[in-house]
Amino acid sequence: MTAARTVVRTDTGWDPRRLAAWSEPHLANVEAALSRWVGIDAPVQLGDAMRYAVLDGGKRLRPLLVMAASEAVHGDAAAALRAACATELIHAYSLVHDDLPCMDNDILRRGKPTVHVQFGEADALLAGDALQALAFELLTPDDTGIAPEVQAKLCRLLARAAGSQGMAGGQAIDLASVGLALDEAQLREMHRLKTGALLQGSVEMGAACAQNVAPAALDALRAYGAALGLAFQVVDDILDVVADSATLGKTAGKDAAADKPTYVSLLGLDGARAQASQLLDESLAALDRSGLADTEALRALATMVVDRDR
Amino acid sequence: MTAARTVVRTDTGWDPRRLAAWSEPHLANVEAALSRWVGIDAPVQLGDAMRYAVLDGGKRLRPLLVMAASEAVHGDAAAALRAACATELIHAYSLVHDDLPCMDNDILRRGKPTVHVQFGEADALLAGDALQALAFELLTPDDTGIAPEVQAKLCRLLARAAGSQGMAGGQAIDLASVGLALDEAQLREMHRLKTGALLQGSVEMGAACAQNVAPAALDALRAYGAALGLAFQVVDDILDVVADSATLGKTAGKDAAADKPTYVSLLGLDGARAQASQLLDESLAALDRSGLADTEALRALATMVVDRDR
Repeated sequence: MTAARTVVRTDTGWDPRRLAAWSEPHLANVEAALSRWVGIDAPVQLGDAMRYAVLDGGKRLRPLLVMAASEAVHGDAAAALRAACATELIHAYSLVHDDLPCMDNDILRRGKPTVHVQFGEADALLAGDALQALAFELLTPDDTGIAPEVQAKLCRLLARAAGSQGMAGGQAIDLASVGLALDEAQLREMHRLKTGALLQGSVEMGAACAQNVAPAALDALRAYGAALGLAFQVVDDILDVVADSATLGKTAGKDAAADKPTYVSLLGLDGARAQASQLLDESLAALDRSGLADTEALRALATMVVDRDR
Repeated sequence: MTAARTVVRTDTGWDPRRLAAWSEPHLANVEAALSRWVGIDAPVQLGDAMRYAVLDGGKRLRPLLVMAASEAVHGDAAAALRAACATELIHAYSLVHDDLPCMDNDILRRGKPTVHVQFGEADALLAGDALQALAFELLTPDDTGIAPEVQAKLCRLLARAAGSQGMAGGQAIDLASVGLALDEAQLREMHRLKTGALLQGSVEMGAACAQNVAPAALDALRAYGAALGLAFQVVDDILDVVADSATLGKTAGKDAAADKPTYVSLLGLDGARAQASQLLDESLAALDRSGLADTEALRALATMVVDRDR
């Protein structure tokens, strides 16, 4: 591990190679599925823009959370694969729209020109719109054995995570907060929606791939997802300060440049690290009380979220 | 009836007052439901932008198609109301995004300033995104008696109608077609996706509010929706030429100004009228062979689509 990776703490004792070994087949399945499902038969260059936005990039954290949560509850594998891809499509569409000139006006993402730089603003807009629709289409296949109850619940969770009381709502607060002095509660609420809702939603969607999961286990997974989601954003704020653009694959330091409130601007670098560390503890404690046996991948993912360098 | 209303034909014998009497309670239900469901609890001005985009405007053609189709198959009323609102949310979001400067750059819609003029581009973008998510959220309530099979099917139909092989795909073709000489088959394909998919989808969603509808009836309703969807666009092209902005509530003549291919530019005004008339006959013939008894509202809606002045 490099010094840059251990931005928060070094005592977690997790083994990145063990997580990588668990992740590898899941990532292969997700990549293959995305490649099979995204932008196929879409007209003109819309499909190209959709595939450019989704394929061959990103950490796939949300799909891995779906897979790990589904594994913990012994969920339906076919449902989990579709849910995993759907969360990534929502994430990818949000990045495409977020990068547009009227939002963050960013030109670099995952080390590549952003979608609107590559395809033009109009096609970037439409590609994002079509990716959101595709997410719900993937969740509702008519030719599989996935129970309608599971399909409906996955759509419900994803729609809530993505909408005005989830990701889109958080982005609206973010927009309205530039230059404002938010306190920690306000910053937490913004990130709970902007980034946390979809991460927590990914965990809940994985859990929804099984029916009849104990309510206490679902509550614990929800708490795990909420703490992990917030931790992710705190570490993002830390990385925006301590990492460089080449490592991040996106423009570093842009939050400070845009005068956006961050955990670092609010708590200082050490305070933000302490916050991330505490959230990791919370997420692991939630797993401890879940009553579920197979939570090793979830534990490793939470640790990775805090202990990453990009 | 004014001369402007009867742009296509006068021999259909339909009674606008009878359709209005049927529509009135449905429209009241839809308006009340939209007002109850859209933008509530959304943060900052996102909710205002969502409500501005959706409430107090529009013909509500898609909701009425859902209601009429559900009535024809004796569908679940609660499901039909949610489906009706969901189709309108998808339609409304598409207008918000379509009006953005990077797309049509339009400043007038339904007689009001467009959403980005009123709220700024970033909030317009997010409001559209949130409206799409809300559409799927409305279709998947967890506290109602709507069967999960119906919820999943409604999501499937709406996602397909809205996505890259539906509305968004058609808009991408439209974008790529400016200044090109499309033939009638290409123009038809563009409109089948851009406008037709959601109109046809609305009919299919209404039909999906009942389970165990005869396959032949579903096929007939699908054909009805396809013909109506195309007729709608042909008449739109006619109105773009013959009506004025005040009547339309949006900028007239903009297709010609943008050098976009239209049915009028391709077939001439008389040819486009003949086309619309033929499509109306097709849609009514489909209802005749559906085997369904209660199709009066669907018949009246098809006629209204062709026989309208805005």
